Amino acid sequence: MLEQIREKGDVLAIGLMSGTSADGIDVALVKVHGAGLDTQLELQAFDVLRFSPAVRQRLLTAMGPKGAGNMEFCLLSSYLGELFAHACHHIVKKANVAMEDVDIIGLHGQTLYHHPKRENMPGFAVTGTIQAGSAAVVAERTGRLVVSDFRSRDMAAGGQGAPLVPYLDYILYRHRSRGRVAVNIGGIANVTAIPADSELDAIMAFDTGPGNCLIDMAVSRLTNGTLAYDAGGKMALAGKVNPPLLDALLKHPFFAQAPPKSADKAAFGEEFLGQALAEHPGLHPNDIVATLTALTVRTIHSALMEHVLQRTRYEEMILSGGGALNPVLVSGLQQAMPKLFITRSDDYSIPSKAKEAVMMAFLAHETVMGLAGNVPSATGAARRVILGSITPGALPA
Amino acid sequence: MLEQIREKGDVLAIGLMSGTSADGIDVALVKVHGAGLDTQLELQAFDVLRFSPAVRQRLLTAMGPKGAGNMEFCLLSSYLGELFAHACHHIVKKANVAMEDVDIIGLHGQTLYHHPKRENMPGFAVTGTIQAGSAAVVAERTGRLVVSDFRSRDMAAGGQGAPLVPYLDYILYRHRSRGRVAVNIGGIANVTAIPADSELDAIMAFDTGPGNCLIDMAVSRLTNGTLAYDAGGKMALAGKVNPPLLDALLKHPFFAQAPPKSADKAAFGEEFLGQALAEHPGLHPNDIVATLTALTVRTIHSALMEHVLQRTRYEEMILSGGGALNPVLVSGLQQAMPKLFITRSDDYSIPSKAKEAVMMAFLAHETVMGLAGNVPSATGAARRVILGSITPGALPA
Repeated sequence: MLEQIREKGDVLAIGLMSGTSADGIDVALVKVHGAGLDTQLELQAFDVLRFSPAVRQRLLTAMGPKGAGNMEFCLLSSYLGELFAHACHHIVKKANVAMEDVDIIGLHGQTLYHHPKRENMPGFAVTGTIQAGSAAVVAERTGRLVVSDFRSRDMAAGGQGAPLVPYLDYILYRHRSRGRVAVNIGGIANVTAIPADSELDAIMAFDTGPGNCLIDMAVSRLTNGTLAYDAGGKMALAGKVNPPLLDALLKHPFFAQAPPKSADKAAFGEEFLGQALAEHPGLHPNDIVATLTALTVRTIHSALMEHVLQRTRYEEMILSGGGALNPVLVSGLQQAMPKLFITRSDDYSIPSKAKEAVMMAFLAHETVMGLAGNVPSATGAARRVILGSITPGALPA
Repeated sequence: MLEQIREKGDVLAIGLMSGTSADGIDVALVKVHGAGLDTQLELQAFDVLRFSPAVRQRLLTAMGPKGAGNMEFCLLSSYLGELFAHACHHIVKKANVAMEDVDIIGLHGQTLYHHPKRENMPGFAVTGTIQAGSAAVVAERTGRLVVSDFRSRDMAAGGQGAPLVPYLDYILYRHRSRGRVAVNIGGIANVTAIPADSELDAIMAFDTGPGNCLIDMAVSRLTNGTLAYDAGGKMALAGKVNPPLLDALLKHPFFAQAPPKSADKAAFGEEFLGQALAEHPGLHPNDIVATLTALTVRTIHSALMEHVLQRTRYEEMILSGGGALNPVLVSGLQQAMPKLFITRSDDYSIPSKAKEAVMMAFLAHETVMGLAGNVPSATGAARRVILGSITPGALPA
């Protein structure tokens, strides 16, 4: 089954992603040409299928160290399998392609828990991760080969299982003469630094801390849920940064850690924000949002200065994620790093919103080709490894 | 990677099994010749690696609909991965074989929860199963290709994900002119009925209910944990069957269900036994054990009479599992079905104790060969499907 795919010139792959915010399923249909460092990716179709509020609530309840129990996990995982399979059927229909023409499905799944810190058990120190979304259900409903559970193997090789995106960043953004820093500002912000004319193992990638997660949380809280995020940076623009609150937030131990490091969204959650605000009472909502926006700018800037920009010459900063639409974040970053030319990932071949789903198609293809998909300098793994598990499609008719 | 294995004449496979009693890891090294219905299996080495009491307790705590939480599941699953990998290294050393010569590892994992009953979710009815034991960790520590998560695909195809053993029973026991019923008396008892000269889809297989689980539980309870099982059937022999208690136990709704059916050990657990004993106070411990032993005989006999023996002619009953060592069970079955010639699975090529581990090696091999591994007449699946997910071994050096 793998050989048949490997011998094709162009491979058609679907990538499925559902982020930790559990908003819905990102699904991309991608034409893959070549493999490894010579991979070329062409997006054929993309869509987002939102979870219903009830499903989203069940997913959120099933997250974290405790979760919602074995039975709920079983049912949710199979149910997500059905929804992911539905997303596959939806995207091929949208692209006017037959399901039989799809070669590979890359299924990230819904992360319910991620534990990259080593814990001592008798004789072994272990880590672990849980992605819900049954590969068996997706394979059975589509008849196509599915690659899933991408993070576990990197973790088994000593890595944190994240980030995975640097390999795709390298494929998309490496340049003979320009050093480029890709900055993705999602809930958590992460950077991938690709020096000019560099090998894969020369890139650096790590989370810098909160991207939009604290801003979104504060906006929702301060407007009693009326607003979900600071559209256009309006609240931040209307407010003033409060230096004592900013200093308090900067004391979070994550910022002092050296890369490779990945941020747990829970570490920048309600508890962290609530405590900081309780210790700085009476601030105007706009000032709070301005300060949290400044925190994202400051921590991206500091991390880049300390670990990236002082080492190698970079010319360009490629912004992506929801934060790239916040003018206060963008201008803050431009002012802090005036020598970097700012572009958007949408200026490149893969639009920002589709990137994670495209990544799953790409990584699944690498696995089927028998190639490694992790970047040890980003995850901390001891070596490059083939990621994921391959669930066969339907038996030949 | 798959092609290389498929082109070999003999394939060397490791099978790993850890039963629901969570006693330890069964590991078998098996030479596989041929594939599909023509498979020949030759056991090279077998061993059992017991879990420490502390590990066993953590596993037992993580079972059931509630479980022990996401974090504990993550850590246990990775930890079991380490122990399963250790078992692989142990068995190749014992057989004086290099790990590089092993082609495939079949990893059943430790079942923490199994939910074959369909539950309604918005738009879909779903089932599910959880096997702990990270395939990524086993693949990374051994460098060999691992096949795991065998039950999910059958369930995605509408089956109960169990039993898996009928396919192996068919490979080992089918006969041109003799009808054979394989009866495995483990914690739960199951039967596989293979008419003479039958096709695979003519076999019947299902659980009949408790095998040793209630007997063991009662013995442990009545001796305050001094004894773990009724060795040699001594207690049953010294006791008398109590008809009212037997009748009460026979009212369990499982016995009235039509096959295909699989018994949840939890349905024949402390609660069921405790309630039955509470309603029949003052019985002598030996009488209780005699009655529970009679329950196993009676329910195997009734199920065979009702669903198997009245339909087709059978000549032989092949006993396996711990119950095959209990003379009261064996003579009870012989008296109930005097026309069947009783043999032991140990009289055949694969000894009883190694059978489940051998099965995992066999099923993993079928998956790598691109062949189906389920028996729809046993599991209730809508069709034959390729079982499991394939986790690649190490990158070529």
